[in-house]
Amino acid sequence: MSSSKKVLVLGAGAVGALYGGFLHKAGVDVSVTCRSDYEHVKQQGFQIDSCLGNFNFQPTQVVRKPEDYSGVPDYVIVATKVLPDADVSSLLRPVVGPDTVIVLLQNGIDIEPPVAQAFPENLLISGLAFVCSNRIGPGHIHHQDYGRLIIGAYPGGSHQAVLELSEWFKQAGINCVASENIISARWKKLVWNAPYNPVSVLGGCLDTSQIMESTEAVLLVKHVMEEVCLLASHEGHPQVESVIEQNLVDTRNMVPYRTSMLLDYEAGRPMEVEAILGNVVKIGRRHQLAIPHIQALYALLQLKDVHNRQQKIPS
Amino acid sequence: MSSSKKVLVLGAGAVGALYGGFLHKAGVDVSVTCRSDYEHVKQQGFQIDSCLGNFNFQPTQVVRKPEDYSGVPDYVIVATKVLPDADVSSLLRPVVGPDTVIVLLQNGIDIEPPVAQAFPENLLISGLAFVCSNRIGPGHIHHQDYGRLIIGAYPGGSHQAVLELSEWFKQAGINCVASENIISARWKKLVWNAPYNPVSVLGGCLDTSQIMESTEAVLLVKHVMEEVCLLASHEGHPQVESVIEQNLVDTRNMVPYRTSMLLDYEAGRPMEVEAILGNVVKIGRRHQLAIPHIQALYALLQLKDVHNRQQKIPS
Repeated sequence: MSSSKKVLVLGAGAVGALYGGFLHKAGVDVSVTCRSDYEHVKQQGFQIDSCLGNFNFQPTQVVRKPEDYSGVPDYVIVATKVLPDADVSSLLRPVVGPDTVIVLLQNGIDIEPPVAQAFPENLLISGLAFVCSNRIGPGHIHHQDYGRLIIGAYPGGSHQAVLELSEWFKQAGINCVASENIISARWKKLVWNAPYNPVSVLGGCLDTSQIMESTEAVLLVKHVMEEVCLLASHEGHPQVESVIEQNLVDTRNMVPYRTSMLLDYEAGRPMEVEAILGNVVKIGRRHQLAIPHIQALYALLQLKDVHNRQQKIPS
Repeated sequence: MSSSKKVLVLGAGAVGALYGGFLHKAGVDVSVTCRSDYEHVKQQGFQIDSCLGNFNFQPTQVVRKPEDYSGVPDYVIVATKVLPDADVSSLLRPVVGPDTVIVLLQNGIDIEPPVAQAFPENLLISGLAFVCSNRIGPGHIHHQDYGRLIIGAYPGGSHQAVLELSEWFKQAGINCVASENIISARWKKLVWNAPYNPVSVLGGCLDTSQIMESTEAVLLVKHVMEEVCLLASHEGHPQVESVIEQNLVDTRNMVPYRTSMLLDYEAGRPMEVEAILGNVVKIGRRHQLAIPHIQALYALLQLKDVHNRQQKIPS
């Protein structure tokens, strides 16, 4: 199948290039913005070594920055890291037409409001990728494991564009779920991310199995999960009671996993501290709820992030 | 002045050699156990570069282990780190006579009970050193700053031996306070140690000024101090209300300081996790009090300590 629809991926890193590649496999016209690997990708495209099968992905247009893209995309997928100094709305401005659907394929909580406010007339789709994928060289992506997507219209409900997008992903072999309550799904993902990402860094560069070996660490993880569930519930997105136990069981059973935050930290890249913890702390303060374990992780991770950035050159 | 009393220092490191040296300056007969620097110290004694004036300290006996000490000391001063695998009572057994006074010059809380139980007939003195002192080479101690001591009979009250010991230290120029409530003084010291030691390590090897620059970190420090005060009060050692504010002000005003835990961490040595946090967590559980910030630091520091020990060779 092929589609005449045009997709532009902003931030063609380990996540953006991978999912752009899958859309390309589904016959969609996919272009990318690409900074550091521009020359390489322009000439050779992406080499995607995927657990679902290797393939080459040659984008229709490869541009350094959104302004250089010619035409107006039907979908623009934002797959950049969520960092305080990355203004997504400014990135989007040059490419968003009246009918362009904006897709945020990013981590964290409360990341949609600034974009929704900047583009009130455009459909906004919020998406979560459950994937283990790394850039291992110029234009070279290693998709090690997982790959499931959940996407949904923001702030909720159903929309034809969500179904269209999820159809394309499914055609490429990706398990893509169209959710009518994507914010609830974000909270659910945060139940795992909020403890494991920070603890993997703060505990001394640990994978999940090393964390799970420590009774005190598991207790901390559990307390953080309880606090996330408390906030989710106050935000109108109560999680099922079994979510914590299920997450702990799943984590014990899975192959030892190094979190994305840990990979960023080790590479001297900025970590998504605000998207994953800072916004949660803000929500806690708004509701005047005690979330001491999250606050402790947040304070330590902020310190760690500042000094990590100063010490190493971001790649 | 000279004394016919005999003192044996167990663990002649940065703290033990320094205070042993001061007693020697006061004319006391001081011997030491010394493992790694044995040959050097036996031949040349200790070179003490002190902010109070440099001096050489030649102990009367230098022995590798307590069993090798000849005679029975009047005082045995334990200045080893407080680590789970260091059994202080076994160390003491060969040298403690019926009238030997045991002095614990160590960090942390609740470190006395095992020793008190092992030597129920001996006077136990508990002591706190407020000092910045490092071993900078074989038998070479650098006493950079501070030096104040607080000593007191355990579990409380006054005793002639405490006064005698503090007199000797005063003669050597050390500000030594004889306290009738040493446990309360331990809690007071812990108000500072419990937050700053762990945060200096977990925040990414920071000195006190780098911690104080972060609003969230100061909040975390404050919460930990509040939890320590809560426990102290439940243990019968309520702290004055101003202690937290005073500690924060003092820390802002002091020369940027690297905690002893940070120095241990950076040298790949075991950290005093249990003495400074683990015992506090146990006390919190005994009283069924919520101390979430301390628990979070404890869980993370345990992880960090285990992996620090595995990665580097203890010096």
